[in-house]
Amino acid sequence: MKNKHLNQLQDWLKIPSISADPVHKQDIQKAAEWIRDKLTGLGVQAQIESTSGHPVVYGELKLISDKLQESSHKVPTILIYGHYDVQSPDPLDQWQSDPFEPTIRDGNLYARGAADDKGQFYTWIAAVEELIKAGELGVNLKFLIEGAEEESSVGLPEYIADNKDRLQADICALSDTHCLSPQQPLITYGLRGLCYFEIHVQTLAQDAHSGIYGGNVLNAAQVLAQILAKLKDKDQRISVPHFYDQVRVLDSNEKKELANFPWTAKEIKAEVGAEAVVGEPDTSLAERAGARPALDINGIWSGYQGEGGKTIIPATAGAKVSIRLVPHQDPDEIAKLFTKYVQGLTPKGAQVEVKLLHANKPVLLERGSKYFQAAETAYEKVFGAKPLYELSGGSIGVVVDFKEILGIDSVMMGYGLPDDNLHGPNEKLSIEMFEKGIETNKEFLKLLSS
Amino acid sequence: MKNKHLNQLQDWLKIPSISADPVHKQDIQKAAEWIRDKLTGLGVQAQIESTSGHPVVYGELKLISDKLQESSHKVPTILIYGHYDVQSPDPLDQWQSDPFEPTIRDGNLYARGAADDKGQFYTWIAAVEELIKAGELGVNLKFLIEGAEEESSVGLPEYIADNKDRLQADICALSDTHCLSPQQPLITYGLRGLCYFEIHVQTLAQDAHSGIYGGNVLNAAQVLAQILAKLKDKDQRISVPHFYDQVRVLDSNEKKELANFPWTAKEIKAEVGAEAVVGEPDTSLAERAGARPALDINGIWSGYQGEGGKTIIPATAGAKVSIRLVPHQDPDEIAKLFTKYVQGLTPKGAQVEVKLLHANKPVLLERGSKYFQAAETAYEKVFGAKPLYELSGGSIGVVVDFKEILGIDSVMMGYGLPDDNLHGPNEKLSIEMFEKGIETNKEFLKLLSS
Repeated sequence: MKNKHLNQLQDWLKIPSISADPVHKQDIQKAAEWIRDKLTGLGVQAQIESTSGHPVVYGELKLISDKLQESSHKVPTILIYGHYDVQSPDPLDQWQSDPFEPTIRDGNLYARGAADDKGQFYTWIAAVEELIKAGELGVNLKFLIEGAEEESSVGLPEYIADNKDRLQADICALSDTHCLSPQQPLITYGLRGLCYFEIHVQTLAQDAHSGIYGGNVLNAAQVLAQILAKLKDKDQRISVPHFYDQVRVLDSNEKKELANFPWTAKEIKAEVGAEAVVGEPDTSLAERAGARPALDINGIWSGYQGEGGKTIIPATAGAKVSIRLVPHQDPDEIAKLFTKYVQGLTPKGAQVEVKLLHANKPVLLERGSKYFQAAETAYEKVFGAKPLYELSGGSIGVVVDFKEILGIDSVMMGYGLPDDNLHGPNEKLSIEMFEKGIETNKEFLKLLSS
Repeated sequence: MKNKHLNQLQDWLKIPSISADPVHKQDIQKAAEWIRDKLTGLGVQAQIESTSGHPVVYGELKLISDKLQESSHKVPTILIYGHYDVQSPDPLDQWQSDPFEPTIRDGNLYARGAADDKGQFYTWIAAVEELIKAGELGVNLKFLIEGAEEESSVGLPEYIADNKDRLQADICALSDTHCLSPQQPLITYGLRGLCYFEIHVQTLAQDAHSGIYGGNVLNAAQVLAQILAKLKDKDQRISVPHFYDQVRVLDSNEKKELANFPWTAKEIKAEVGAEAVVGEPDTSLAERAGARPALDINGIWSGYQGEGGKTIIPATAGAKVSIRLVPHQDPDEIAKLFTKYVQGLTPKGAQVEVKLLHANKPVLLERGSKYFQAAETAYEKVFGAKPLYELSGGSIGVVVDFKEILGIDSVMMGYGLPDDNLHGPNEKLSIEMFEKGIETNKEFLKLLSS
């Protein structure tokens, strides 16, 4: 049975559904059709629906009719989310086997999309298929599989808003994260939000000769550096006034739980090749990563960047600056505070523009809900260990959209592993994790069945 | 007579001797041959001599033999310097007439090289030709015309060092600068030096995801910004300890002379399109430009510079930083102080490398010398106005080399005008200035004749 699922998944993985590359537009369509057909084969009412980006596949599998549902006791509806698009496989020459010829080596399935996200999503298809065969499915299901996740989910928020009623469910379940190891599952109960800014500085109409004008005019790169240097203090705290006003204060239990999270400075240093781990005092590593905001300069540019020297005073300079937000910070409010602060740092004679490129709200999920309880119980049964709870430092847009637009939480049940190499060469999914994922999903759905 | 010089110059200007473009290697050779032949025609012993860059044309015209020179009273030897190479004419579509088809419009000669430097240098050829014809040449002459000035004079310092004895002279005269107007000549008596640095910051082995690691690791762009922000204080003074120790202190006369130099904040603002003129307190604009050091960031780069956002923590960041030096600062000493200061600003966990890309010494010329006196008198006679004295903010490498290697000063007798558009489209030389230049050179040479 498990081999059958793996074989089917491999068919899907062969389709190079690279969302960012227009050359693969037909493959995007093929991958959508493939999963639509698979859902239809399971008895799901599934179709491809267009968005302003790539199309989504939407499906419904109702256990009982609306009428019966009303009269009988409440059957929960679970919205299962995944994405059928993948990242580009570049650099191709670093793959040991073709990214679109799925290959099994050493207990792993290697292919672009094996973990992110076709393989992980497929654990739900397999689980549902097995439950239906065994007559054990006791929940209503909705499926939403998008084709633009690797392109910032272009078009998805509008699609969700436009289909708010149809998509309504009690909870969303998705598998697009990871466990710490095949022995240690993980449940994410919060995500940081984001404000992404671009800053432009202008001091002159055009670059000036540093011999003639050096000493008499403002240098845009210097102005930019002086602004950027004042965004954080020496303790890595963000210097924007009132920035921390809305940050959720952790109670001592949660602080302790995060402090005990198994992620050490040594591991961080090895992962990114850093000599030192640097962060806010009196906070643990996991707390900084998930429960504290963080500001990073993502890029800077000005003047001459080529070989050798060019003696110019740059007229303009720019930077990308992003801030990871935590509950209960509001991106709009933070954008206002940040812009005001930067404008206040601007010296006379310089013009500084701050543009908000995009923003995500932070999310905190209700980990005490019956859905989180079911996930915990299912993980423990299959993995033999209670899952750890994690606040993720990153953003998963769809979880925010489900929360904001549909008003529902998401249970993120990841079956990847930290070394899956998502977005890189030789992406893989552990076959052990794939099988455990199917079993965990089955347990989860059974626990929620009426 | 004047028309004849202008016609001959136009022949030379037709040769597109663009030193930076290998396609024009033959034109470089042709332009060198042209001026060699011209010199030979005047009776100068001239030849083309190779360097590690483009060749130079070197010539000697001895008024009297070495033997007679020894026995008679001293006849001064004047080394006349110029360059036969030009900048690329790009952007070509902005020229009103072909850059290599010299065209006269409204009293100006338009062509690439008209001012920089073929046309200006040719005032010396014309002057010498006229003096010879009139039997009025009373000095020994040497000529050095290089072909790589627009490429930082590659190969010239070594050539001068290798030919130190042959090049020996009492003074160098060159015309590669400008007057303030056709009524106001200008003599440059000092040049700033330069230290040009490249700074590299590294904090991680590779860029890291700002969601996962934001809050726990050092951001290379942030480290760079914090270093750059501390290079100057709010008064635009350079913060490197002991940086100003060797700076020449001006006496009140010179300070006043510079303060009276006709260059206003309004003009600077119009020239570079600035909203404000910003510099050290208690210094005049001309003092800041020529007698005070200046530090400028010439370029910065790090992380993502494209459209939209990329949520990375950059592993590396870089900057070009240059410092204009004034007498009596020593570039080697300044480079040591600067490097030590930057290293001291480096936080734990970051690696910072400071590379000195190149350095020029500052130069102060002896404006009381008989050569400067002769230049002043000649200018006054022809222009009807005493020349102003200026400390130039830029560097002219060959003046430093002559001073350092040959031990001689240079008299910079410019005949350009501020709006000649050197290096840009529609470069021109005023025909009035060309003619005044020839007359001034003649007066200058006659004043020095025995």
